[in-house]
Amino acid sequence: MKGFFYPRTAGGASSLIPSPPWYYSGDLLTVEYRTDPARVAELLPAPLELAPEDPGAVAIIWADWQSCSSSRAELLDPVRSQYKEAFVVVRCSFEGQVFSRCVYIWVDKDFAIARGLHQGYPKKLGSMWQTRPHPFGQAAPQIAAGGMFGATLAAADRRIAEAVLTLRAPSDSNGFVNGHPMAHHRFYPGIERGAPDAYAELIRSGAASFDGGQAWAGDVELRLFESPTEELSRLTVDEVIGGYYRQVGVVWDGGSTLAHLAKEDG
Amino acid sequence: MKGFFYPRTAGGASSLIPSPPWYYSGDLLTVEYRTDPARVAELLPAPLELAPEDPGAVAIIWADWQSCSSSRAELLDPVRSQYKEAFVVVRCSFEGQVFSRCVYIWVDKDFAIARGLHQGYPKKLGSMWQTRPHPFGQAAPQIAAGGMFGATLAAADRRIAEAVLTLRAPSDSNGFVNGHPMAHHRFYPGIERGAPDAYAELIRSGAASFDGGQAWAGDVELRLFESPTEELSRLTVDEVIGGYYRQVGVVWDGGSTLAHLAKEDG
Amino acid sequence: MKGFFYPRTAGGASSLIPSPPWYYSGDLLTVEYRTDPARVAELLPAPLELAPEDPGAVAIIWADWQSCSSSRAELLDPVRSQYKEAFVVVRCSFEGQVFSRCVYIWVDKDFAIARGLHQGYPKKLGSMWQTRPHPFGQAAPQIAAGGMFGATLAAADRRIAEAVLTLRAPSDSNGFVNGHPMAHHRFYPGIERGAPDAYAELIRSGAASFDGGQAWAGDVELRLFESPTEELSRLTVDEVIGGYYRQVGVVWDGGSTLAHLAKEDG
Amino acid sequence: MKGFFYPRTAGGASSLIPSPPWYYSGDLLTVEYRTDPARVAELLPAPLELAPEDPGAVAIIWADWQSCSSSRAELLDPVRSQYKEAFVVVRCSFEGQVFSRCVYIWVDKDFAIARGLHQGYPKKLGSMWQTRPHPFGQAAPQIAAGGMFGATLAAADRRIAEAVLTLRAPSDSNGFVNGHPMAHHRFYPGIERGAPDAYAELIRSGAASFDGGQAWAGDVELRLFESPTEELSRLTVDEVIGGYYRQVGVVWDGGSTLAHLAKEDG
Repeated sequence: MKGFFYPRTAGGASSLIPSPPWYYSGDLLTVEYRTDPARVAELLPAPLELAPEDPGAVAIIWADWQSCSSSRAELLDPVRSQYKEAFVVVRCSFEGQVFSRCVYIWVDKDFAIARGLHQGYPKKLGSMWQTRPHPFGQAAPQIAAGGMFGATLAAADRRIAEAVLTLRAPSDSNGFVNGHPMAHHRFYPGIERGAPDAYAELIRSGAASFDGGQAWAGDVELRLFESPTEELSRLTVDEVIGGYYRQVGVVWDGGSTLAHLAKEDG
Repeated sequence: MKGFFYPRTAGGASSLIPSPPWYYSGDLLTVEYRTDPARVAELLPAPLELAPEDPGAVAIIWADWQSCSSSRAELLDPVRSQYKEAFVVVRCSFEGQVFSRCVYIWVDKDFAIARGLHQGYPKKLGSMWQTRPHPFGQAAPQIAAGGMFGATLAAADRRIAEAVLTLRAPSDSNGFVNGHPMAHHRFYPGIERGAPDAYAELIRSGAASFDGGQAWAGDVELRLFESPTEELSRLTVDEVIGGYYRQVGVVWDGGSTLAHLAKEDG
Repeated sequence: MKGFFYPRTAGGASSLIPSPPWYYSGDLLTVEYRTDPARVAELLPAPLELAPEDPGAVAIIWADWQSCSSSRAELLDPVRSQYKEAFVVVRCSFEGQVFSRCVYIWVDKDFAIARGLHQGYPKKLGSMWQTRPHPFGQAAPQIAAGGMFGATLAAADRRIAEAVLTLRAPSDSNGFVNGHPMAHHRFYPGIERGAPDAYAELIRSGAASFDGGQAWAGDVELRLFESPTEELSRLTVDEVIGGYYRQVGVVWDGGSTLAHLAKEDG
Repeated sequence: MKGFFYPRTAGGASSLIPSPPWYYSGDLLTVEYRTDPARVAELLPAPLELAPEDPGAVAIIWADWQSCSSSRAELLDPVRSQYKEAFVVVRCSFEGQVFSRCVYIWVDKDFAIARGLHQGYPKKLGSMWQTRPHPFGQAAPQIAAGGMFGATLAAADRRIAEAVLTLRAPSDSNGFVNGHPMAHHRFYPGIERGAPDAYAELIRSGAASFDGGQAWAGDVELRLFESPTEELSRLTVDEVIGGYYRQVGVVWDGGSTLAHLAKEDG
């Protein structure tokens, strides 16, 4: 049976995602802010701990991606290639090393859900929009001083976050919260009623290669809204750190196990 | 950390799905036909084998569901409760017992994808439509002799199946292909590049309770279409067995492990 | 050139909607309440005036429809037949007669937008959900005492209305606000920059025939939310009148002109 | 009552579209080919006639737009700003002058439908995708020799067109079929059953201003597929003329009436 992911078949063409490496080209709009570190700690299961410095730092990142596998076939049938996402990243500490960790994420395609499942990103479906730069006409900002970019996130027909970023100047950094290797949980709930997880591990993952353009920093407004199915608004915006915009290219090609975990009750 | 599924949080409200039991009320439109048993065998990894009788039988089932957890909260916010699906079922044999097995399935909500991941249904996103019965007006069939129901399935902006069912008479059966306990694989690809699966098991699952109305049988037309990302059309329609319509209620409350499997290379 | 609506072609098959009559079968969830009559008057262009009795009465109606033309072809390709909508109705007076008037409406299919354009319903796209009754299982209410139905409306990724209806008893009425013939404007903005409307008329429209089941009345909660692109929340809920549920069948087969109007500046 | 389009209100904020001028920034992927001129003539109601030269020329154009009104407010809430479309253009002759004419068009937002209604574009909802250029990573072509772009169009869950364009060299032209002022019909079917159109005119429209980057020409493959609700495939691809890619900015600010037309029976 062939296929990196389900459904596995004799030929393998049905697999929701092909095997890595996976290639990405896209635009990132990042908002960083500080919340109460206790709210971050709530999202860090043992053995993870708060990062030693600036433990309440949070990044919300909107990304407008085109992606493909090694065959590049998806690029010519772009319904299978383009997707949007918004994700929330905090930092944590494991065995003395600082990691980034995605605590919430929404995407708009099934292949992105499946890749996230593999990588330990807790992906749900959402509706994400971010202003695109364009070189012509009057209906787009440019990646330049004064360029204004909006970004919104909704899930289950409720808007849960929105931001406006006004670019000010080139920046050495595109933010720091998402700048470490990722420490993610991968678990599979047990099939028996009430059973503990059938599988649970802590993995490390990051880009196999990366290129990107000039990052820009700017002034940012961010609003979070309540929803009965989301807890993003618990990460209250106590102090805005900054906003960033950068065009990037990324390759992802697997991770490694940091620890096999005691299986928790779900 | 609480939550049956990701993202797990201190409060647990974010989990994409709550813990079972899960409740379903909906309408099933079933088409059964025979294909070349070799095409079914292609979809049965060891230790599964072809069913001893009528091994080439296939069912394609469209379902229009409303679903909820024990809290029933989803029913009052129905964007979280209603979904549609189409799924393809064959039969197989394991240790001398006949099982049903879902080989392909498409749904239109993320919570349905997550429930399928738990249950071993290989769910992708699709666009499914099926005619609804209604007691009033001239824009609906009734579940009665002569009632005509259409059903369509598309994925990635391509139509891949469509059926028309004309009800003829009440039926003792709603079909036989999906009538056994399900034998499904649950696996998690290994996180290291090229590694075998990190986890793999064969599980048994079925309804914890069931009620339903009178099944109806009828004449059916079925057309399958090719797609570069789907292999449904390999299960060619060699002989139509029949078509069925039934309204049902189902409770799902966990399954059990049949076998822990050697971890395959993806 | 053939075709009731655009695009007109030699064969006519492309027309977004075929000519009337149009047939509908569906479920209506109605919430009626009183707002400040001045807010209703704001939505009544001359020569329309407030209704003489209970002028601040408003109905918000969710409808889950299956619809078709005389060919019934849409019923067997139900992506072209099913749609959902939510609409807001007030009453008005024209030449001494009371009319109903739809002031806001959202639907989820293009053919519904086109039919609304013809009938003078000001349709936008939205995302509407309403709980469905079902006779089996535990994931659906029944149309009976104690049955609870939720309904939600979102547009542009913002939720703008939600309601919960708990059925109490059969009712002689399904509400009164939407019970009159409709008085709608049909206008076409002039093509020249700044020109007045190229066409404007006031029309009368209503069902050519109607059948329906027993109406039920119940207790209802309604919440409206603000949005920069919608003004529904100006119709504040000052006093809830009641909630209703009814399954209906409707035929629509044209209307008539009440008045040709002075062409307004847009 | 204020509002360029419906619903008109006292404040005007609800209008599905604000008044022109409308601004657009986006990318155009154009495929030009020749079909049987008789098939073009079928789509030209009197008084329009075939263009005198190359009367069978057809352009299918995919466009990935960001758009806004004079307030620019839509740009910061991009769910209201971004949309995709695919449209089919032929040429025609009116009173001795050659015009372009859009005969079929699909978009994915309601505000785009409304703008099209005003401009005489016969817009339906569809699902359109086109490969995006991006300067970084390996998941995007660049607008340069060898850059490959795919484009697809689906409506009602059926794929009806797909193209692959491989850029070869800079080009003086972005194609010629869509290069004239547009001659479009604007009509409103009469409200009475069986009545002729209540309004019908032939209008002329075009960009109020335009800027754009270097156009590129390339080799192109185009496939059209049949659908019961579309007639695009009647415009058979007899000979491919060429493919083009260009980034553009456009302002639209009204048109003018060419002729008031006899009102046709729908």
